[in-house]
Amino acid sequence: MKNEIKIFSPATVANVACGFDVLGFCLDSVGDDMVIRKTDKKGIHITKIEGFDLPYETELNVAGVSALAMYEATQPDCGFEIEIYKNIKPGSGIGSSAASAVGSVFGMNELLGRPYNKTQLTQFAIKGEALASKCEHADNLAPALFGGFTLVKSISPLEILEIPTPDNLYATIIHPQIEIKTSESRAILPKKIILSDAITQWSNLGSLIHALHTNNYDLISKSLHDVIVEPHRSKLIPHYNDVKTVAIKAGALGCGISGSGPSIFSLSKGVETAQNIKNAIEEVYSKTGIEFDMHISEINTEGVKKIN
Amino acid sequence: MKNEIKIFSPATVANVACGFDVLGFCLDSVGDDMVIRKTDKKGIHITKIEGFDLPYETELNVAGVSALAMYEATQPDCGFEIEIYKNIKPGSGIGSSAASAVGSVFGMNELLGRPYNKTQLTQFAIKGEALASKCEHADNLAPALFGGFTLVKSISPLEILEIPTPDNLYATIIHPQIEIKTSESRAILPKKIILSDAITQWSNLGSLIHALHTNNYDLISKSLHDVIVEPHRSKLIPHYNDVKTVAIKAGALGCGISGSGPSIFSLSKGVETAQNIKNAIEEVYSKTGIEFDMHISEINTEGVKKIN
Repeated sequence: MKNEIKIFSPATVANVACGFDVLGFCLDSVGDDMVIRKTDKKGIHITKIEGFDLPYETELNVAGVSALAMYEATQPDCGFEIEIYKNIKPGSGIGSSAASAVGSVFGMNELLGRPYNKTQLTQFAIKGEALASKCEHADNLAPALFGGFTLVKSISPLEILEIPTPDNLYATIIHPQIEIKTSESRAILPKKIILSDAITQWSNLGSLIHALHTNNYDLISKSLHDVIVEPHRSKLIPHYNDVKTVAIKAGALGCGISGSGPSIFSLSKGVETAQNIKNAIEEVYSKTGIEFDMHISEINTEGVKKIN
Repeated sequence: MKNEIKIFSPATVANVACGFDVLGFCLDSVGDDMVIRKTDKKGIHITKIEGFDLPYETELNVAGVSALAMYEATQPDCGFEIEIYKNIKPGSGIGSSAASAVGSVFGMNELLGRPYNKTQLTQFAIKGEALASKCEHADNLAPALFGGFTLVKSISPLEILEIPTPDNLYATIIHPQIEIKTSESRAILPKKIILSDAITQWSNLGSLIHALHTNNYDLISKSLHDVIVEPHRSKLIPHYNDVKTVAIKAGALGCGISGSGPSIFSLSKGVETAQNIKNAIEEVYSKTGIEFDMHISEINTEGVKKIN
């Protein structure tokens, strides 16, 4: 068995308009690279971090904490070194901490001969995610581990459903380089919502799950609406409505806040439309004076994976 | 073309626990019989009503109003007589008015050579349903017309999704012979609900749609929970919790209020379990002193249909 593995741990989009707190999907062209290495020296050691300035102390590092959770449960006869080549900016809203949390446990599991299934790996990764987001949630972890679209039916007990992904579905992501504090994006949400709005939201989510099962792009489009969270959180993202308007005009099936923002995702049928959406958003956002970057990605149906 | 058609218009269960206001399914062993007859005499005439005491005046009868809506849109060179052999008690919570509303337009459509599709027929039937329930809704109409499980994604524009039905799914229905006023069952619902409860509800609905697509009985069971409406409306149904407890103990996948009650549905895998549930509920309810009747039915995947 090899003693070292190089992996790609993908960025992810959580919430997905009508699926607040439960739905997510996995990206393919954006993610972190990580190297996990089996060592004679016991324990978890982070030996390299490139890309962003993150703590080397295992207990303070998301990848370290999830690795520790698995390590303590497993008590293997070895230790692990972790190298992190971070491409996903922390706080961008496309699952940066989830990628780190998932990468270490996925790599260790491979090196140990796969003692754990993906749901069990999610359990360990939740511990790392909790370090970053102060609560245990899996809406980025699940798509990062399983790929495609996932629905986290419940956290306790952890139940993750793999929803089919239509063949030709692409995401266009804009990440405006602003900071939204997690505390602020939480505080802005109402504790109570109007029942009729909730009905609209669950009708859309039920409909989206059906649309993904039936490859129905038109219905995906009709379902990608968020009447609960977007009206509040979109205020925290400058020029959100302009982005959404041009994305839809350029052919997007739908458009929404990625996670708790500030990134904004659009979904589209085919890479050409995804490119048109990128161009249209770029034109709008380049006039705002706010730095931003953009990604186009096919939906990644594999999730975190070994690379050569 | 024949001038007369005899049809079976089925009872239906709306809401289905987590699917409040959007989901419904169709029953097979309970429903109304109707005869629709083409006549030289113009207009819609209700010529016979058996089973329950309902108005003969077309404009005051649910079947008459939906028939009129279709008749006025179509302006055919003939009239129609409607005979209603009503088996579904009005106010029982299993779509009595929907069966009437659906039956007349389905029968007329057959006699006219099917000028309308089922969604169009639903549009006409909504007018009849509105006479009974004072609002335009389709959560009983849709399963009565399409059969199986349906999700009414939206009323305006009307969009009905046909969700697959697992092979061996049975419903057990108890109808306690009490009256719940529609006004009361509406007034008891809160206008606002807690966001975290709404998330639980839409997670369950998304999960149920996925479970129906994947024939996953275990997941159907885990999804059939209603944290929004049941806590309020169940108070209007005597011994509701006892019924639910014994139904689950007897093997029900889930149990909930049918429509706005007072009927209670259980779903189960296989007719034997459905029978066990019926026996268990009968044992409990026969001690309450409240009159009741019960039905066991396979899920009807065809909906309203012609009979010989």
